[in-house]
Amino acid sequence: MSAAAQVDVVARDGAARSSTVTTARGTYRTPAFMPVGTRGAVKALDAVDLEQLGPAVVLANTYHLLLRPGAEVVAALGGIHRFTGFSGHVLTDSGGYQVHSLAPVVDDDGVTFTSVYDGSEVRLTPEGAVDAQGLIGADVAMVLDVCTTLPAPTAIVRTAVERTAAWAARAREHHRRIEHRPAGQALFGIVQGGVDPELRRESAERTVDLDFDGYGIGGLSVGEGRPELLDALAAAIDVLPADRPRYLMGVGDPVGIVEAVALGVDQFDCVAPTRLARHGTVLTEEGRLNLRNARFARDDGPLDPVCPCSTCARWSRGYLRHLLTVGEPTAWRLITIHNLSWMLALMDRLSEAIQRGELERVRRDVAERWA
Amino acid sequence: MSAAAQVDVVARDGAARSSTVTTARGTYRTPAFMPVGTRGAVKALDAVDLEQLGPAVVLANTYHLLLRPGAEVVAALGGIHRFTGFSGHVLTDSGGYQVHSLAPVVDDDGVTFTSVYDGSEVRLTPEGAVDAQGLIGADVAMVLDVCTTLPAPTAIVRTAVERTAAWAARAREHHRRIEHRPAGQALFGIVQGGVDPELRRESAERTVDLDFDGYGIGGLSVGEGRPELLDALAAAIDVLPADRPRYLMGVGDPVGIVEAVALGVDQFDCVAPTRLARHGTVLTEEGRLNLRNARFARDDGPLDPVCPCSTCARWSRGYLRHLLTVGEPTAWRLITIHNLSWMLALMDRLSEAIQRGELERVRRDVAERWA
Repeated sequence: MSAAAQVDVVARDGAARSSTVTTARGTYRTPAFMPVGTRGAVKALDAVDLEQLGPAVVLANTYHLLLRPGAEVVAALGGIHRFTGFSGHVLTDSGGYQVHSLAPVVDDDGVTFTSVYDGSEVRLTPEGAVDAQGLIGADVAMVLDVCTTLPAPTAIVRTAVERTAAWAARAREHHRRIEHRPAGQALFGIVQGGVDPELRRESAERTVDLDFDGYGIGGLSVGEGRPELLDALAAAIDVLPADRPRYLMGVGDPVGIVEAVALGVDQFDCVAPTRLARHGTVLTEEGRLNLRNARFARDDGPLDPVCPCSTCARWSRGYLRHLLTVGEPTAWRLITIHNLSWMLALMDRLSEAIQRGELERVRRDVAERWA
Repeated sequence: MSAAAQVDVVARDGAARSSTVTTARGTYRTPAFMPVGTRGAVKALDAVDLEQLGPAVVLANTYHLLLRPGAEVVAALGGIHRFTGFSGHVLTDSGGYQVHSLAPVVDDDGVTFTSVYDGSEVRLTPEGAVDAQGLIGADVAMVLDVCTTLPAPTAIVRTAVERTAAWAARAREHHRRIEHRPAGQALFGIVQGGVDPELRRESAERTVDLDFDGYGIGGLSVGEGRPELLDALAAAIDVLPADRPRYLMGVGDPVGIVEAVALGVDQFDCVAPTRLARHGTVLTEEGRLNLRNARFARDDGPLDPVCPCSTCARWSRGYLRHLLTVGEPTAWRLITIHNLSWMLALMDRLSEAIQRGELERVRRDVAERWA
């Protein structure tokens, strides 16, 4: 039986790979960057904007949707695709990372945290996270894991690995059992283990033993240095099966993405491109550009002269800077469209480079402009 | 010589009229509702959204553009059309109304007020307002007038009428002289006079004597009752020439619009439809709908079942309510598109009713649902 997220490798360049991933919804190409639609919308965008940008997958946050409007409400409104009007792939995180940032009470059975919306006490278990993502109707669901802030004592990381493994087994079992989820919904396990390659390897092995449809590598890009991140990542990837997607969670800076692709990662999510956009940091072929800088006030040129996006086709740096400095939401949307367009173009460039065996050249180029 | 805003009446129904207005930019049909693009964007929308909505005219605020980014910057970036990417008609107010709300120091020569952006002291004169609108590159510029809050003692209203008349003469003269404005830019005078029909008539006569390309009726909908508003309006219209546009400033509620159209008004502006949208008040065929109401949480239907707009075609009340309650800017844009679509459809309906001699029926219908 084929997995619910089948990887067909189209090209390799060293450990890097460009693949077609096939799910119940359809296919997407890797390397893939997943824009983050926290509360059922990529901030300031709608489904038409997403269709025009064409991301392989969009991420939605289970944590947020669980609290508002509630997973049952999303289900009552037809599931995440009908709810948002977006018919492409949707991956939901499990809520583990958001809950982690709220300093929750974690016990062996699950986590208890306080809702940011109304202060109420909320309980999340591995089974509950699977249920919620089933109701939400994601194409790809993630298991509930336990994150640690880095640096962390080995004992803390070890406990997180143990709980993550135990919860993964419960999630896998529960996911097989329930019916209130899309037919063919994929479930990804998550590898933890901090920056200790041995713990990463062990966590990866224990996760792979449970036979997930894909594998997230979590708990990285949380304060450690890039070399440590890449060592831990390499140790995990070494164990992961070649025919399942590998998803490095929360990494979205160009250098981090390219280095991880070089190690064999398939997909990424990060709020950075959209959050930066709303603060006026523009991703361009020449590197970051701070649009708030006064020198752009009378600049009639596009955000990035080589960009084919709808924002660059029509509006000037001067206009967008003006809208941004006076707080017009139009600026957030138009700059977000550009930044996402830039990120998706970077992924296309990586895919093409892998197919031509030229990833090393792109890697040097990105390192030079973005280090 | 034809005026810079020539009215060709297509149909009449009593005092109401449906016209084609021809300017240097092209033509627009009346009755017309002008969405307000305060700072160079209708809040949360872009020029593509506006093209799809197709308003006859969009209003931009001279006051705001003068302070940020500055009229010279708009000029340096190619004028308001190239700046915003919108190629339809743009009318700029003179800044008089905004300045009025800041309790400025008014003398015979002009007004001095404090910038809301940086607290600096700003001076606006009739000539300065004309200069700014010339640089901004509006298709229709408005003279600087003096508003009064109502109710007001006759002496105050009288002073406002006198200053408005003196400033109108200076603006008219200055507009003829300057070259830094679009060829064929129209200049509209403004009728003041509070709710006193005699003062309204006098102000209208003195404004018409200066031969403007169109006439704003200002200083209404500022606290007086509807009967007083309509009496003052009728007194002004009685004096205004039939071949020039008549623009009732700041009125945007459906009943007010229909009553004013019945008296012969051609065009309107108001922030209400866009501001209401951002607060979750939806304009529908059945009247106002408060989308924040919990009963819409699981409502899978469109905002307005009979609305053909892009928002109603794709998204449910439940989804939009969710985005609105969690503060997603996507909600502001999508509901704004609907509310403006509704307003523009109302104007189409009025135009058609006038052409069929059925305005009275629409008037009763609107009064019933919106009173």
